[in-house]
Amino acid sequence: MSLQLTPSGQLKHLLTIDGLNKTTLLRILDLAEEFFDPKTKQIIQSDRLKGKTIANLFFENSTRTRSTFELAGKRLSANILNLNVQNSATSKGESLRDTVRNIEAMQCHIIVIRHMQSGAAHFVAQHVMPGVSVINAGDGWHAHPSQALLDMFTIRKHRGDFHKLNVAIVGDIKHSRVARSQIHALHLLGAKEIRIIGPKTLLPSYPESLGVNVYYDLTKGLKDVDVIMMLRLQTERMQQGLLPEGNAYYRMYGLTEDSLKLAHPNALIVHPGPINRGVEIQSDIADSPNAAILDQVTNGVAVRMAVMSLLSQARDQ
Amino acid sequence: MSLQLTPSGQLKHLLTIDGLNKTTLLRILDLAEEFFDPKTKQIIQSDRLKGKTIANLFFENSTRTRSTFELAGKRLSANILNLNVQNSATSKGESLRDTVRNIEAMQCHIIVIRHMQSGAAHFVAQHVMPGVSVINAGDGWHAHPSQALLDMFTIRKHRGDFHKLNVAIVGDIKHSRVARSQIHALHLLGAKEIRIIGPKTLLPSYPESLGVNVYYDLTKGLKDVDVIMMLRLQTERMQQGLLPEGNAYYRMYGLTEDSLKLAHPNALIVHPGPINRGVEIQSDIADSPNAAILDQVTNGVAVRMAVMSLLSQARDQ
Amino acid sequence: MSLQLTPSGQLKHLLTIDGLNKTTLLRILDLAEEFFDPKTKQIIQSDRLKGKTIANLFFENSTRTRSTFELAGKRLSANILNLNVQNSATSKGESLRDTVRNIEAMQCHIIVIRHMQSGAAHFVAQHVMPGVSVINAGDGWHAHPSQALLDMFTIRKHRGDFHKLNVAIVGDIKHSRVARSQIHALHLLGAKEIRIIGPKTLLPSYPESLGVNVYYDLTKGLKDVDVIMMLRLQTERMQQGLLPEGNAYYRMYGLTEDSLKLAHPNALIVHPGPINRGVEIQSDIADSPNAAILDQVTNGVAVRMAVMSLLSQARDQ
Repeated sequence: MSLQLTPSGQLKHLLTIDGLNKTTLLRILDLAEEFFDPKTKQIIQSDRLKGKTIANLFFENSTRTRSTFELAGKRLSANILNLNVQNSATSKGESLRDTVRNIEAMQCHIIVIRHMQSGAAHFVAQHVMPGVSVINAGDGWHAHPSQALLDMFTIRKHRGDFHKLNVAIVGDIKHSRVARSQIHALHLLGAKEIRIIGPKTLLPSYPESLGVNVYYDLTKGLKDVDVIMMLRLQTERMQQGLLPEGNAYYRMYGLTEDSLKLAHPNALIVHPGPINRGVEIQSDIADSPNAAILDQVTNGVAVRMAVMSLLSQARDQ
Repeated sequence: MSLQLTPSGQLKHLLTIDGLNKTTLLRILDLAEEFFDPKTKQIIQSDRLKGKTIANLFFENSTRTRSTFELAGKRLSANILNLNVQNSATSKGESLRDTVRNIEAMQCHIIVIRHMQSGAAHFVAQHVMPGVSVINAGDGWHAHPSQALLDMFTIRKHRGDFHKLNVAIVGDIKHSRVARSQIHALHLLGAKEIRIIGPKTLLPSYPESLGVNVYYDLTKGLKDVDVIMMLRLQTERMQQGLLPEGNAYYRMYGLTEDSLKLAHPNALIVHPGPINRGVEIQSDIADSPNAAILDQVTNGVAVRMAVMSLLSQARDQ
Repeated sequence: MSLQLTPSGQLKHLLTIDGLNKTTLLRILDLAEEFFDPKTKQIIQSDRLKGKTIANLFFENSTRTRSTFELAGKRLSANILNLNVQNSATSKGESLRDTVRNIEAMQCHIIVIRHMQSGAAHFVAQHVMPGVSVINAGDGWHAHPSQALLDMFTIRKHRGDFHKLNVAIVGDIKHSRVARSQIHALHLLGAKEIRIIGPKTLLPSYPESLGVNVYYDLTKGLKDVDVIMMLRLQTERMQQGLLPEGNAYYRMYGLTEDSLKLAHPNALIVHPGPINRGVEIQSDIADSPNAAILDQVTNGVAVRMAVMSLLSQARDQ
């Protein structure tokens, strides 16, 4: 039985893209579209979650992700409870399970959780009461599904039909929860080709299991791609010797004016942010019309509103 | 003249249970009941405090208590201001009195205060302007009245009439603001018998003044009790030599399957949380149907909504 | 072209008092007045900014200023996003410009910014998108316009017509963003005379350019003044040898019963807070009927509501 979907196919939790189906994915993207005022292109204020409560339970700090979840909830008129877990009872030795039980008991309807351990969101979803939904806002190296959803929303908005798209993901694929979720989403939406590009040390050991084509050479990998999905460089990988040092990485895998020439002239560039200018991407490329990096942030609010609304609908039935 | 009640008996501040009367206590419990939707058992969203402002002034960190006060205010549609006092002007040398005057000047109608010093909430209540109410969310070893109120609400809901109830409080009674408030509340509501159980070093010197029966032996103290009120073990007491070390405390005063057998078979277990599994309570006892520990958290939101509503009514008259 | 005003004279950003005109200043003060309920003198709850989002971007900690901005936004029913910048992506190396772009992308309509560097708010205002307004909540030694506006509101309320008023500003004028903004505002509103009083090391080098009269001697400077604007003593100035040590400063420049005798008997005392009792001001003088220090805090909420409302109106046109 699916942990994420009800028997009738409603969204119950958002934990990974893997395990969702195309219908659900499209339902989220379509609903997100409705949260934009067609005239002003501004995100609307809605009453859909009035009287509902959302807990933001962040074990890892992330201003950007937490803020967009918070704003998504506020734009739906929900009550928002931000829980800084570093300072909470968990530090008095309370287990994750007990922490979550207490949040449930406060009658929070949605728990947004970010955790450093892979599987934390699944663990929570397996143990919450029937009336509570869980959104995985990033767990270890495992998944970050709302990021992949906003990426897909952005790609669809700018480039339309996925079946014609050749998409490349560039960087540390191996340790990236974002990349993992993106690959699943691209498959579900029927992308023509998915490539992963990066140094051997940072690519998964059995890439064929992911249904992607592997490139160690950026110049070859970017040839004719329609969408370039950059990953944020985790500089701690350099310290671990997994990445070429500083400038060498940039020369080999940095997205620059030169490397970009090999892609499709209209190639769309996305990046989960915050960007490292001059580290994984050339500063003016990040600001060029091809880049949809800030548009992704806006879309992230709308996509998270859509996820919260669908979770809430499923619960109310 | 009462600091907590107006001449006509309305609630002006909530500082201690001592000094309240039975009528007021029951009014709070009855109103809390009204904040549950009778069908769904969910706490309702209300507009009662719309346009009012509540300041959460926490000098001691407490995620659970702060969160339930915050949610109580949000469910009443109040504006909430969370003040992290560690980072505030107080650290620039501002006195508690000046801090409170500034919060008043921001036109906060209710100040929820937690402070490490006994008497802090009283001090504030004595100095606030007529339009402002104070809720004591725990002051030193002195009082934690909203905790006692939610305990009483939970006991009444599960066991009904207090006059038939034999209640035992177990643990460090001497240093517990929770125990002090519970004893006052149980007396006001007419509990049949109140027992306190713990090691001699952690029981009050003159227990007879509290109108309770004293037991140093858990097995004797729990005999035939209807309600067991556990206290959280403050491990720093062990370091001070006031408590038997680790496992010895658990063997002597821990609530386990064995010790529980002596109580009434239906004995209700309450605990202010967060629980220390295997320290003061056996893990599966905490999760058993006898335990109302998570129900207390839910009730805490409703009871705090009731207190805030009554304070607000008194002010508006 | 003015950065702060639209061609038709609407308020676009609030960065400094310098660059505003008297009409705009009075419009803010008049609108702030409207946010008080005439009967209860309480600040009203309004729906003017419902569906709008305000980001509080504080690079320097300031509970008082941040709280009054937060409450101003909440009383206008806006969505509020508090950004603790110490913990944000900025610490991952993101520039101020990128931070602000991301906040814009989250569709925040107003950005309230406090920053340790002079000019930070201008920099942001120059780079935000057309739909976004910036409020300077204090930048380095440069400006703190909303503080000056609430000071002017308070003076007007208590003393009426500025043309008759002789105003003295006392303390560290040289390094004070508050003083700078106050002087500009007093000029715009036509104060009869503006004096600055302080030790030579803490007065500006070319005071005549500010259109003020300079006094090194408090007893002479306070003679016949109608309004005394105290500044908060930054004790780090003492460590730098710019200020007479501790008690010596108080004896020379502290506002005491004795020094106050020289001013007009009804002289109004204002102070941006938090006050240092017995350092720059005698404790009972701060609590005397002449002091409007707490009234300033209340007025600060209303004045900030007025600024936010006007910014929002300009944007909607």
